[in-house]
Amino acid sequence: MGAIPGLTTVGLLGGGVIGGGWAARFVLNGVDVKLYDPDDDAPRKIGEVLANARRATGKLVMTTLPPEGTLTFEATPEEAATGVDFVQESAPERLELKRELLQRASTTAPADVVIGSSTSGLLPSLLQDGIEHPSRLVVGHPFNPVYLLPLVEICGGAATSAATIERAADVYSSVGMHPLRLAKEIDGFVADRLLEALWREALWLVNDGVATTSEIDDAIRYGAGLRWSSMGTFLVYRIAGGEAGMRHFMAQFGPALHWPWTKLTDVPELTDELLDRIVSQSDEQADGRSIRELEALRDDCLVAVMQGLRSAGFGAGEVVERYDRLLFERSPAAAVGTSGALADPDAPAPIRIYEHVVGTDWIDYNGHVNDSRYMQLSGFGVDAFLSAIGIDADYLATNRTYVTVESHVGYVDQCHAGDHIDVELQLISHDAKRLHVFTWMRRHGSGDLVATAEHMLLHADTKASTTVPAEPHVLEKLDEVAAVHSTLPAPARVGRRVGDKPVRDDNSA
Amino acid sequence: MGAIPGLTTVGLLGGGVIGGGWAARFVLNGVDVKLYDPDDDAPRKIGEVLANARRATGKLVMTTLPPEGTLTFEATPEEAATGVDFVQESAPERLELKRELLQRASTTAPADVVIGSSTSGLLPSLLQDGIEHPSRLVVGHPFNPVYLLPLVEICGGAATSAATIERAADVYSSVGMHPLRLAKEIDGFVADRLLEALWREALWLVNDGVATTSEIDDAIRYGAGLRWSSMGTFLVYRIAGGEAGMRHFMAQFGPALHWPWTKLTDVPELTDELLDRIVSQSDEQADGRSIRELEALRDDCLVAVMQGLRSAGFGAGEVVERYDRLLFERSPAAAVGTSGALADPDAPAPIRIYEHVVGTDWIDYNGHVNDSRYMQLSGFGVDAFLSAIGIDADYLATNRTYVTVESHVGYVDQCHAGDHIDVELQLISHDAKRLHVFTWMRRHGSGDLVATAEHMLLHADTKASTTVPAEPHVLEKLDEVAAVHSTLPAPARVGRRVGDKPVRDDNSA
Repeated sequence: MGAIPGLTTVGLLGGGVIGGGWAARFVLNGVDVKLYDPDDDAPRKIGEVLANARRATGKLVMTTLPPEGTLTFEATPEEAATGVDFVQESAPERLELKRELLQRASTTAPADVVIGSSTSGLLPSLLQDGIEHPSRLVVGHPFNPVYLLPLVEICGGAATSAATIERAADVYSSVGMHPLRLAKEIDGFVADRLLEALWREALWLVNDGVATTSEIDDAIRYGAGLRWSSMGTFLVYRIAGGEAGMRHFMAQFGPALHWPWTKLTDVPELTDELLDRIVSQSDEQADGRSIRELEALRDDCLVAVMQGLRSAGFGAGEVVERYDRLLFERSPAAAVGTSGALADPDAPAPIRIYEHVVGTDWIDYNGHVNDSRYMQLSGFGVDAFLSAIGIDADYLATNRTYVTVESHVGYVDQCHAGDHIDVELQLISHDAKRLHVFTWMRRHGSGDLVATAEHMLLHADTKASTTVPAEPHVLEKLDEVAAVHSTLPAPARVGRRVGDKPVRDDNSA
Repeated sequence: MGAIPGLTTVGLLGGGVIGGGWAARFVLNGVDVKLYDPDDDAPRKIGEVLANARRATGKLVMTTLPPEGTLTFEATPEEAATGVDFVQESAPERLELKRELLQRASTTAPADVVIGSSTSGLLPSLLQDGIEHPSRLVVGHPFNPVYLLPLVEICGGAATSAATIERAADVYSSVGMHPLRLAKEIDGFVADRLLEALWREALWLVNDGVATTSEIDDAIRYGAGLRWSSMGTFLVYRIAGGEAGMRHFMAQFGPALHWPWTKLTDVPELTDELLDRIVSQSDEQADGRSIRELEALRDDCLVAVMQGLRSAGFGAGEVVERYDRLLFERSPAAAVGTSGALADPDAPAPIRIYEHVVGTDWIDYNGHVNDSRYMQLSGFGVDAFLSAIGIDADYLATNRTYVTVESHVGYVDQCHAGDHIDVELQLISHDAKRLHVFTWMRRHGSGDLVATAEHMLLHADTKASTTVPAEPHVLEKLDEVAAVHSTLPAPARVGRRVGDKPVRDDNSA
């Protein structure tokens, strides 16, 4: 149960950041791990990596992970490679050290067991020199954190067999990775060459006092880094070329290659042949998708990534969050609170607190607005009311807010896309911590009732996870509203239990 | 209403990919745009960018966007800059062309109106030379798509005033961007120098036949690109250094600077002074967070980004999806409620009717799942139950179905993106037309309660808009379930009115 065919046990050489990441990825996929690391502290360090990985991988996948594999520490590389189905080496980037480990492990690993090396840039031909059965050695270069990032570059050396490359790709795929097979052996492979170029330029920027490490990081994570999470440089630039595509982009930015835009000035000649190659490879990569289609795909990815970062509360997610607060503060509903009285003693009535036009994204498979959206509409109204009584960005920044503890919704009529709905709100009761409100959702203009809702909210310190009294200026606003709303009749549906006898549709205020 | 203080109208010079993106960002934020572009086709192209932007921005923010600003096309740069509060130039990267546009616009833009240039790399000192009131010119370099990516690099020239830089930062922030103020004027600024370094290396890789454009893109988007969406290179490397931090990382990978890992071999000398500078800037950037804390933050961001990409069905999201299917195929099949009997008389219990992993698109401005989503989750459970008792596509085709007439939701605990939730359902009562059910939403695995819901549904003919009895085969199924569920205790929260005294959290079945 839970086993990967042909992959019961792996031998790992080295248990640092990368080796520990491999250990975590294999163990979490139900594979037993035999690990060699001369560092006495390795078990503690790997335990911490495994704890991180367990937490993150559990969040990443929907399916329950299989029972974990075992993790045992071996005293020698020979022992770590005994009786295993696959070996992965992740020692520091010193050729002689790696060679020694690989040679020793190759004496005990059965001839048909493939050996992968995590080297960031050393050539596989150099690594396989002198090991037993050199055709089974291949570079499988992963990225930190190994237990989360899918990429593993596969690069064979002069002696590596095709079967070795296939076996390595199968092993890595079986634990959730994306193997990228490289056609040529080259120092740094592909990914690290790109990273190293960017890194060297970044070091120049710090060296020359142009920017700090933090500014350089911001220049990546609020801009190109967001795009690179779903599309590489070539596809991004194809899209940037607009309707005219890749050839246009190259023509437009080709001259920049000779501008001093980086200290890397040894650039390839943009010959017609190179240009043709780039354009035809880019065409193939686009796979028939038009620029407009690619733009929509890019935008969907960017929105999804930024929404994701918003839930993580970091980077561009923070920017979006701030932006949304700004929009909220500028919205007409928020303005209700700032423009004088919320409730007029001379004309007591529920407050028309919010307006919304139903978008197509709220529509169900049957063409109706999904039931849950009435709750969301009412929630918009409640949010606007909270904003109006002083729960603004500054207030929220103190970790205090009202949280809803229960709600009742009565469905009266169906909504469709394009319907313009008003939300009206009546304050039922409140004290220092409690806030009980009732809302009506009505068609704008006719006033026809669509739904009602009733909510109980508690004022809480969200950091301390406990209820606390609201600030005096908020309670003062609530008292003001209560003075007017207490003169209104109770809504017909207030205090309903699910299953109570139907009431007349409460179209009155 | 909805207006940004001091920013009613902007003048835009150039309406290509970047200028069109600016137009969209301003218009969607309720700012009027006056645009000059000599291309007759500009209105069509910008219309398409605006349509993309409207769609994407609507998905990005939770708040309703303000009423859109107007977009008018002007015949000259002078007219585009007349009567506006801010000017942004986005012409092609040709110094003489940009200079001419800026000079002409500067003759009509009032002296205190700031003029930003979108140039990717031309020096602001060169651009401001010869314009009227040169102290109000500043580079504001955005990234494509301008309507989504938050980054804008702000770089002043020799004559730029401090007030100009503050005003530009305010304008960009007010439309949701993240201004990055650069300390020094330099060709390519910061971001494009980094991009250009990577790009030049990428061109070498294609030129030398090492990899195709598609392989190079994969080497980014399945690896480092995922990290760069939330953290830049320096923070990523600090974490890679493990417990020993940035100094250790530099010591470990410093030698690689002299290895042929890129064709950029003109590297800065890693002097003690440069090393100290990097380490101290990196310490400041980490802001007291330990490596373990940073690792957890990194992992949360990576998971959130990959979950986001999964909802977009692209890139690393596809890899995760495939991995999850693999895990599922390897796991003991966990069929939910639909295989055979709905309720087991020998083990009476609520039916586990639905499972759902919360996506990033359910997240609120405060990082929580919006209240209304608990209703939606419960609704998914009810839908699954209806399907299980025979309300299938054929049944629905006869215009009959159950419609919800009222619901009650009790909120117990917050959900976040990635949470895996089970929905359990108990039949409370039913007759020929009525169906009364109660649901629990619990964390998968631990069973911890997140929310409860209660629903009354009526069986209706939706065409005739009247209630009618359900078909006998449906009622038979309900009778079967009732025979088992009637032996269960009533849920503690059933029949609650909003505002009733709190009950203990009902964690029992």
